[in-house]
Amino acid sequence: MNRSEIELLFQNNFPFYDKLTEAERETFLRTSQFVKFPKGMNVHDGAECTGIIFVKSGCLRLYILSDEGKEITLYRIFPGEMCMLSASCVLSTITFDVYVDSEEDSECVVVGGCAYEALALRMPEAKIFALETALSRFSDVMWVMQQILFMSMDKRLAIFLLDETAKTGSDTVALTHEQIAKYMGSAREVVSRMLKYFASEGIVEVSRRGVKLVDKKRLRDLTR
Amino acid sequence: MNRSEIELLFQNNFPFYDKLTEAERETFLRTSQFVKFPKGMNVHDGAECTGIIFVKSGCLRLYILSDEGKEITLYRIFPGEMCMLSASCVLSTITFDVYVDSEEDSECVVVGGCAYEALALRMPEAKIFALETALSRFSDVMWVMQQILFMSMDKRLAIFLLDETAKTGSDTVALTHEQIAKYMGSAREVVSRMLKYFASEGIVEVSRRGVKLVDKKRLRDLTR
Repeated sequence: MNRSEIELLFQNNFPFYDKLTEAERETFLRTSQFVKFPKGMNVHDGAECTGIIFVKSGCLRLYILSDEGKEITLYRIFPGEMCMLSASCVLSTITFDVYVDSEEDSECVVVGGCAYEALALRMPEAKIFALETALSRFSDVMWVMQQILFMSMDKRLAIFLLDETAKTGSDTVALTHEQIAKYMGSAREVVSRMLKYFASEGIVEVSRRGVKLVDKKRLRDLTR
Repeated sequence: MNRSEIELLFQNNFPFYDKLTEAERETFLRTSQFVKFPKGMNVHDGAECTGIIFVKSGCLRLYILSDEGKEITLYRIFPGEMCMLSASCVLSTITFDVYVDSEEDSECVVVGGCAYEALALRMPEAKIFALETALSRFSDVMWVMQQILFMSMDKRLAIFLLDETAKTGSDTVALTHEQIAKYMGSAREVVSRMLKYFASEGIVEVSRRGVKLVDKKRLRDLTR
């Protein structure tokens, strides 16, 4: 990405960008970086301030981690979206650690957190934008929490499988049971058991290539 | 509470209050109400905009609810604190429903959400304050989520019992198993089973009056 492409990205995504002075834009651009993250790379690690991450292509996954290394995926960040929780110097009230991995080869622009915070101190619009962007993910997280806490496993797995195939356009979810469990915040054993049950009911076919959905109607019924 | 007491409360809690004009303060006070909520009353119910609730005395409990009526306590609001998530017209990015009950007889001041939002549109400081207050609870909620998802039940129950006795200053937690389960986002059966185990180990004594902690050292060891 060249400089004018990055500037265009900022113009389209920061509602206050047009109000910045020439010098402020210059600082903004100087502290921003175009970065390619290969699939599977850890992009942001807990308490450090990585900055605000725009996703141009690919996909990032944001998750929390237990002491024993268990992960819960909170949400994914798709092209055109940005990750604000990785900018801890902008969000002083966020005291929990999140982790971000690139789930596919991803092209991103990272805006320096400290430079943004310096701007936010002068410009309330920039502060409000950062807070609102962060807060909007609160709702995503609550949704995950409700899924995990309130829903029965069959319903959750059915929703996950349908979501995945809707996203990829394929009838097969090309993930291992381990990966599915990780995304769902569950255990591999639980996922395997439920998939075996689905297979015995003729709802899915499980093979080395993944999970093929053969009876979507019944899966949809399960989500109700 | 009389008018000048309410005004003092606002002065101490809204960092922008001193910058308001006389007319703005007048509106603020006119749209605010001193309310007594008896113990157990539902104070805020889902999507409606109840307003910003200051707790002067007592305690409020904020929770989410599943379709089947299962509750998960997210946090409690103690004297001197305020509830921002009940002001949905101020926080348009919050799309999940929360419920608030008074856990004890509570004295509160409720600031009208729409009046606050009108002010926030003119005054960025008021908007920033509301967003930061809401966002600071994001961390509380993540803590609850990690407790529930990552921790084993014995550890969680030990932490809960120690927290409760630290709070009340008594060695006995005067709650039913049902109540403990509700606060912990668990099931009564699970709590009863674990308390029975704790009792058999000589860690607690369970009676009709509640749960008496007899070996705090071992409870503390469990929390590690």
